[in-house]
Amino acid sequence: MTLALDAAAQDLLFREARTANTFSDEPVSDEQVQAIYDLVKFGPTAFNQQPLRIVLVRSEEGRARLVQHMADGNKAKTSSAPLVAILAADNEFHEELPTQLPHFPQAKDMFFSERSVRESSATLNGALQAAYFIIGVRAAGLAAGPMTGYDAAGINKEFFADGEHSVLAVVNIGKPGEDAWFPRSPRLAYDEVVTTV
Amino acid sequence: MTLALDAAAQDLLFREARTANTFSDEPVSDEQVQAIYDLVKFGPTAFNQQPLRIVLVRSEEGRARLVQHMADGNKAKTSSAPLVAILAADNEFHEELPTQLPHFPQAKDMFFSERSVRESSATLNGALQAAYFIIGVRAAGLAAGPMTGYDAAGINKEFFADGEHSVLAVVNIGKPGEDAWFPRSPRLAYDEVVTTV
Repeated sequence: MTLALDAAAQDLLFREARTANTFSDEPVSDEQVQAIYDLVKFGPTAFNQQPLRIVLVRSEEGRARLVQHMADGNKAKTSSAPLVAILAADNEFHEELPTQLPHFPQAKDMFFSERSVRESSATLNGALQAAYFIIGVRAAGLAAGPMTGYDAAGINKEFFADGEHSVLAVVNIGKPGEDAWFPRSPRLAYDEVVTTV
Repeated sequence: MTLALDAAAQDLLFREARTANTFSDEPVSDEQVQAIYDLVKFGPTAFNQQPLRIVLVRSEEGRARLVQHMADGNKAKTSSAPLVAILAADNEFHEELPTQLPHFPQAKDMFFSERSVRESSATLNGALQAAYFIIGVRAAGLAAGPMTGYDAAGINKEFFADGEHSVLAVVNIGKPGEDAWFPRSPRLAYDEVVTTV
């Protein structure tokens, strides 16, 4: 038992948690999403940047606008999940640095004046935040079904008219339904991933 | 209490956990890193791809090779942390898909034959895995000090001679030392991040 985290929490977040492909009808409330966000917002990023933006798809019209851009294999589950969240990176996140990094407000102009640099940073750090969010969904006792099979340009245009956001993942959220899981696929062994110099 | 995860675990992983800037002398063992990896390897990625590679920097020579590429503000803490881990994405991860995604081995050629597609995917999914790893360090009762201030091309060339890896972050790991924390910077409020359609 080398870990400080208790075994039940290990199971909840990693060992027993699985990507769900079907969901029950039980709704997911805004209060649950707020509790998730208020936990995972503390996850670390570079320069305390917070590019992650979350669009909760709740209306029938919003669902239809999203599903049309999903890959065929993802349309049915995206249509039926209790809640669908679009996770995107705001490539203009640097505008918030003066308030979010109050001890070093110059970071905004020193490091992020170039759009290509901002976009790379928003992608990397937005992905870190997306991972924290997925862990948070599990922390709420819910199953997450993250997907990247979609027309990204279509989603960006459909939901982010300013042209400054890049979708990172679309996540189905809810209690797992019948036959929710595929068999767990293998993971690389420690020695295949970790080397020492 | 909307979350299923117990409050102590919430604190350990998110609420009380902080990015450390100084560390005690207590070493971090390979057994601890293996326990971390064997927990967080279960974090979800697209197509069960596992691009994350971890280089543990343990020798004096390895440390010197790394520190020369770090930004000035990161050199001292990278020199003195008990353990430093280079987290990188293997842009040739698709070679493993036939064994890691046994129910859909065609994914390797159907989706990842183009290098630019692989590289984007390795960055996004490697970043998800990097976030899981940071959470795992905290789950082990250790503090993580992730950094992105370095010469990325220099690190890639220094540690990954094959030209197929891209550094995602360098993470100092250990028990926090004196004055380990900066004051916590603000986080965006729920309403600044989450919208509903």
